Amino acid sequence: MSALPAEHNETRGFNQHQSQVDHPYLDKKRYEKALGEAGFRGPEAATGHEGRSMSKAYVHGYDYRENIRLQDQASTLVELLHSDTAYPAGCRVLEAGCGVGAQTITLGRNSPHARITSVDISASSVAEARKKIEGAGFTNVAFLQGDIFSLPFEPSSFDHIFVCFVLEHLARPVEALNCLKKILKVGGTITVIEGDHGSTYFYPDSETAHKAIQCQVELQKRAGGNANIGRELYPLLTAAGFTSIHVSPRMVYVDSSKPQLVEGFTKNTFTAMIEGVRQSSIQAGLIDEKTFDDGINALYRTAETDGVFCYTFFKAIAAKA
Amino acid sequence: MSALPAEHNETRGFNQHQSQVDHPYLDKKRYEKALGEAGFRGPEAATGHEGRSMSKAYVHGYDYRENIRLQDQASTLVELLHSDTAYPAGCRVLEAGCGVGAQTITLGRNSPHARITSVDISASSVAEARKKIEGAGFTNVAFLQGDIFSLPFEPSSFDHIFVCFVLEHLARPVEALNCLKKILKVGGTITVIEGDHGSTYFYPDSETAHKAIQCQVELQKRAGGNANIGRELYPLLTAAGFTSIHVSPRMVYVDSSKPQLVEGFTKNTFTAMIEGVRQSSIQAGLIDEKTFDDGINALYRTAETDGVFCYTFFKAIAAKA
Repeated sequence: MSALPAEHNETRGFNQHQSQVDHPYLDKKRYEKALGEAGFRGPEAATGHEGRSMSKAYVHGYDYRENIRLQDQASTLVELLHSDTAYPAGCRVLEAGCGVGAQTITLGRNSPHARITSVDISASSVAEARKKIEGAGFTNVAFLQGDIFSLPFEPSSFDHIFVCFVLEHLARPVEALNCLKKILKVGGTITVIEGDHGSTYFYPDSETAHKAIQCQVELQKRAGGNANIGRELYPLLTAAGFTSIHVSPRMVYVDSSKPQLVEGFTKNTFTAMIEGVRQSSIQAGLIDEKTFDDGINALYRTAETDGVFCYTFFKAIAAKA
Repeated sequence: MSALPAEHNETRGFNQHQSQVDHPYLDKKRYEKALGEAGFRGPEAATGHEGRSMSKAYVHGYDYRENIRLQDQASTLVELLHSDTAYPAGCRVLEAGCGVGAQTITLGRNSPHARITSVDISASSVAEARKKIEGAGFTNVAFLQGDIFSLPFEPSSFDHIFVCFVLEHLARPVEALNCLKKILKVGGTITVIEGDHGSTYFYPDSETAHKAIQCQVELQKRAGGNANIGRELYPLLTAAGFTSIHVSPRMVYVDSSKPQLVEGFTKNTFTAMIEGVRQSSIQAGLIDEKTFDDGINALYRTAETDGVFCYTFFKAIAAKA
């Protein structure tokens, strides 16, 4: 799509692929870059804590009605989104749409004795993810290039499936969930995590900031995706026939008492992501330069001492009956 | 203000009061009515649980950095907003702006041995609150009619102050907080709870629904208030010179797996509240009848089987240094 940033030619390549999957690489790359720049406690920093976090995560991971961590207590995005996902020893887990491995490394760390298979439609992303995981010393993750709509697995191959920041890029998310359900065992679970740009609000409020954000939403829509998909996890999983669906919103609330999140989330993750679609938004005629730049400045303004920024991710867990 | 619904003439009366306080009665009345209609587990239903919840609440109530309950676990709005507020025996607590006592009864129940003083600018509201509390058999709450900007208390009279759904109605919230700070002891805490209509989003999304909600926001603004004040608690408390400010968002996430919240919150609290400003919105020229009604229908649509509704309250606790 010409609406996509020029530097992401790779994404266009995937659109030319026979698959109707829009590749999750674009946003994953941004998220990871931002998380890295942000000084969030990355996977590396957590090395040595596997024992402690594992036992805790294990207990939580299988009582998902009770397991959701209090978002106030989460000091990092990784903790907020992933700390309650862990899989038992020996079970087979599919990570569908692993991108370059941002979540894979957390999965591998939290479920050291599970047998994880991470797939992505992009061979280069898979290669990068593999390098990252092997570099971290994990041996419990296998990698495979493959299309989520036609994965080469027998029915009921997996005990659990994990899907993070993937559905937002798909034109047919229910069909994707149906494909995944076929290769999930009866009694197995699917975990889905998505953001929702429409959940964004802040102080001081700014109309231009909302217009700049809307550019990202519109570009993603034109690329066949849905940047506001987080709120839809319940109906999507219902439509795909999953049961025992439990959706847990994970709100990132940032004020200046949380300087790590001010830098790491408000500025270097969210605002940087919106800033990244400047050229494509203007080229697509969605907005003029001044309005966009004013909007970005207004987003940075929310990172000042008296500013507040709110964004919500949604995490769903559901079962195959 | 002519922008206010005709049935709330009382509110105009309070506007004619010498005080510049806009009376919180309007929304409090709606909230209470809605909560009652909704079948939320009200204060009465919790009778008999004081012992258990008290000991738990007490521990939580004074370690507020660790005390926030997981919103996923809260099955009622009362639990979501109030379960972690309890005050120790013997301490003096001011509830500023008690309205007709919706929160007073929860305060009285959760802090049975605290000495609570509940004030409101409306004598009739105070009378109604007193009746409610006495009817419930509580003897730990005293009532007083008074203006939040000129309360008849000596400096440092209170150990703790509680303010819920009040600042949203005030044109000068920081000044109100300053007035309250004077009568708070050094080392005491203030707890503030406010909603934020700008935190509302839902599935299916609807532009007309947002327009209808915006009518309520605009009417409240014209009346001198701020329906989007929840996100501002941190800067407001900072501006008033409070310290150790901790803001905890309390998101109400509703899908059809939570039928009690579908009825009690989406339909009978939020949508009913917006529906209540129909006439005044149209009279004020903010919207036409068809758009408003379409918006209301779209809000009810989010309460259907595949619908989702999200709203966030903000709860802040801060100290006087």
